[in-house]
Amino acid sequence: MQRFVSSIEDTPFLSLCCQTQLTFLLCVAAVAWEAGKPLVIEEVEVAPPQAMEVRLKILYTSLCHTDVYFWEAKGQKPIFPRILGHEAAGIVESVGEGVTDLAPGDHVLPVFTGECKECAHCLSEESNMCNLLRINTDRGVMLSDGQSRFTIKGKPINHFLGTSTFSEYTVVHSGCVAKINPLAPLDKVCVLSCGFSTGFGATVNVAKPTKGSTVAVFGLGAVGLAAAEGARVSGASRIIGVDVNPKRFEEAKKFGVNEFVNPKDYDRPVQEVIAEMTGGGADRSVECTGNIDAMISAFECVHDGWGVAVLVGVPHKDAVLKTHPVNFLNERTLKGTFFGNYKPRSDLPSVVERYMNKEIELEKFITHEVTFSEINKAFDYMLQGASLRCIIRMDG
Amino acid sequence: MQRFVSSIEDTPFLSLCCQTQLTFLLCVAAVAWEAGKPLVIEEVEVAPPQAMEVRLKILYTSLCHTDVYFWEAKGQKPIFPRILGHEAAGIVESVGEGVTDLAPGDHVLPVFTGECKECAHCLSEESNMCNLLRINTDRGVMLSDGQSRFTIKGKPINHFLGTSTFSEYTVVHSGCVAKINPLAPLDKVCVLSCGFSTGFGATVNVAKPTKGSTVAVFGLGAVGLAAAEGARVSGASRIIGVDVNPKRFEEAKKFGVNEFVNPKDYDRPVQEVIAEMTGGGADRSVECTGNIDAMISAFECVHDGWGVAVLVGVPHKDAVLKTHPVNFLNERTLKGTFFGNYKPRSDLPSVVERYMNKEIELEKFITHEVTFSEINKAFDYMLQGASLRCIIRMDG
Ligand SMILES: NC(=O)c1ccc[n+]([C@@H]2O[C@H](COP(=O)([O-])OP(=O)(O)OC[C@H]3O[C@@H](n4cnc5c(N)ncnc54)[C@H](O)[C@@H]3O)[C@@H](O)[C@H]2O)c1
Ligand SMILES: NC(=O)c1ccc[n+]([C@@H]2O[C@H](COP(=O)([O-])OP(=O)(O)OC[C@H]3O[C@@H](n4cnc5c(N)ncnc54)[C@H](O)[C@@H]3O)[C@@H](O)[C@H]2O)c1
Ligand SMILES: [Zn+2]
Ligand SMILES: [Zn+2]
Ligand SMILES: [Zn+2]
Ligand SMILES: [Zn+2]
Repeated sequence: MQRFVSSIEDTPFLSLCCQTQLTFLLCVAAVAWEAGKPLVIEEVEVAPPQAMEVRLKILYTSLCHTDVYFWEAKGQKPIFPRILGHEAAGIVESVGEGVTDLAPGDHVLPVFTGECKECAHCLSEESNMCNLLRINTDRGVMLSDGQSRFTIKGKPINHFLGTSTFSEYTVVHSGCVAKINPLAPLDKVCVLSCGFSTGFGATVNVAKPTKGSTVAVFGLGAVGLAAAEGARVSGASRIIGVDVNPKRFEEAKKFGVNEFVNPKDYDRPVQEVIAEMTGGGADRSVECTGNIDAMISAFECVHDGWGVAVLVGVPHKDAVLKTHPVNFLNERTLKGTFFGNYKPRSDLPSVVERYMNKEIELEKFITHEVTFSEINKAFDYMLQGASLRCIIRMDG
Repeated sequence: MQRFVSSIEDTPFLSLCCQTQLTFLLCVAAVAWEAGKPLVIEEVEVAPPQAMEVRLKILYTSLCHTDVYFWEAKGQKPIFPRILGHEAAGIVESVGEGVTDLAPGDHVLPVFTGECKECAHCLSEESNMCNLLRINTDRGVMLSDGQSRFTIKGKPINHFLGTSTFSEYTVVHSGCVAKINPLAPLDKVCVLSCGFSTGFGATVNVAKPTKGSTVAVFGLGAVGLAAAEGARVSGASRIIGVDVNPKRFEEAKKFGVNEFVNPKDYDRPVQEVIAEMTGGGADRSVECTGNIDAMISAFECVHDGWGVAVLVGVPHKDAVLKTHPVNFLNERTLKGTFFGNYKPRSDLPSVVERYMNKEIELEKFITHEVTFSEINKAFDYMLQGASLRCIIRMDG
């Protein structure tokens, strides 16, 4: 569906690597014009990648709750018109000046946070919060020149998280692109680009449950179920799923969740219920809701002496976490993680390999699939709580 | 000064091990009759140790802020009359039934928290919060029979933290007693029984700064300076001392503290000041004040991506820790510790050895010394902020 706005129109894109630096592309994208209003499929111009940028052909994208939050723009700064989307898989179409480690044809996952490999965070073994390419939810333009690469009849359209994958072509900083095994099925591994890695990494990289331990997972959306998958792979023996939506419980059984608590079923705080169930508290908890009460419960439900709670959910901007400091003095630990502490370029290829080696299962996360023109259905499924991940096929 | 209320009066206590099970002792103790009123030296009867208990002759005790809090009883449950004191060194005088690992003559440190070696906490490598013998600030009696071992003319006097070391003789659960190297000078190692180990362990066992890192220490009392000593021993290159009392700064230089911040000198939060000084935040922080604002600052002053903050101070019972959850999501960790995560019986003997090997210095913590009859002076020194540790000689 893309067209090149130049004399080389219709030439297969893989042969264009030398010329495309200066070539605009015409393709379709799903544009969010206003908060909460259905996306509109529009023809957009995609500028060529500038220095250190790459232009990607997106093959599959999926919808994550973070897209929905910024589309609803409740408690978030509204930035419209905008091309949302950040969980995706694609192929490099062209590269800008200075890009040496990516070439047209490479199979890649774009990631909403990057890795410059030079800053204090990239050099630290513990952090993945690159100073240069860290997530910025308020930026609607590219870093290098403060301009958008998307226009509709010359009028700029905002980027989202540096990825904007709800477009057949998108321009991304090369530091936000993980080059992966070209044999990996892109319609599956696209979920590694955000939700799965976020939840799975929160458990295996941050909470680090030991074999035989008890893990409570708050929120049984895709992120929480990926956290549960991390607990299962780590050999946890009790995986307690906590969700206010009991519809999630049946599905969660496939992910190793073997006990369930609905906070609405009790007239006392759910942390007390979990402490009773576990003889003092869970060994680990992972919060994947974004709800501040769930964050507090997730912290307070872990066992004193050794419990570790990990926050993953993105809270309302005015949310305040409140707890009695004695909960810390009793030797509980509270941590947060961002993208499961994975460094996107260094670590994601190995997560793809774990899938290829059948250590982790991705198929069970993919509950729906729609064509690009049906993208608003993916929003409906998520808003109804019906989907875990809905894959959007860009060629449809 | 002690007298035995039996025919064997005046026999040296070390030869009494077989008979003392049933022997009351008369000795002097400093009794807190009312909140905030000077202690009164009184003659008290000390009952013999019951099963799993030991009776100790205290040789040296020192004053910790926790004694002062429970004496002031502001924001704490008032329990009077009470024999305070929990930082001390002494010698086992007699042992109760079932005590096999301690014998009269052993040099020991009584500890306000114990180690039964059987519960889930004692069996966990991570915890020192023994289920059976964990600190209980509200209990004024012995665990086994709910009775006090102290009486004045038959009227019971409350225990404090299971130690009550402001008495020539005291009865303690055997699980709250660390047997140490008999060559260690008791007038020095007594500070290992609480304050020093609490601060030093908070740094070396919990915050774990790496060589060359930056550590912020909030509160430059004995606990905070012990935390600084832990940072020095760990090879931290910048140790930033934070205190509202600038008198502490001169003394703190001896403890490796090489930069100072007085929050009162700034009209913005001290966490912002520290973030500026350090290019984004300290690598580690250790809070040793008990002040809730300092706790929040200590957390928020650590670097995103890898910063770890450790709470040590005992807060007001109604204190609430409030922070924006994004401070966690940006990959900061908040932990608390209790007695520096040391297991008292298993770990304290090796801390004594580190002192004997001159790895750690204790002399610089001991700024004052008084005789037992002058014990109220020790309170004055602490209330004036003049002392770090004031040693109280029981034979004086
Ligand atoms: N930190 C990161 O890097 C990162 C990345 C991706 C997503 N996220 C966040 O992770 C969270 C989960 O994402 P998702 O895609 O799985 O969303 P989702 O909507 O599919 O799942 C969230 C689940 O939480 C449940 N829930 C809501 N409030 C609850 C409460 N108080 N107690 C218990 N359960 C509750 C909901 O019923 C739902 O099932 C979101 O906040 C998202 O923004 C964070
Ligand atoms: N967790 C444990 O196991 C344990 C054990 C012993 C002591 N403690 C606690 O550790 C804390 C310190 O004990 P200590 O004996 O060193 O007390 P201390 O009074 O000698 O020292 C506390 C220092 O904190 C400073 N301070 C107070 N408010 C401050 C603020 N807002 N900002 C910066 N500095 C501030 C004071 O000026 C003082 O210098 C106390 O809360 C004590 O109860 C805890
Ligand atoms: Zn996402
Ligand atoms: Zn970087
Ligand atoms: Zn103390
Ligand atoms: Zn125990």
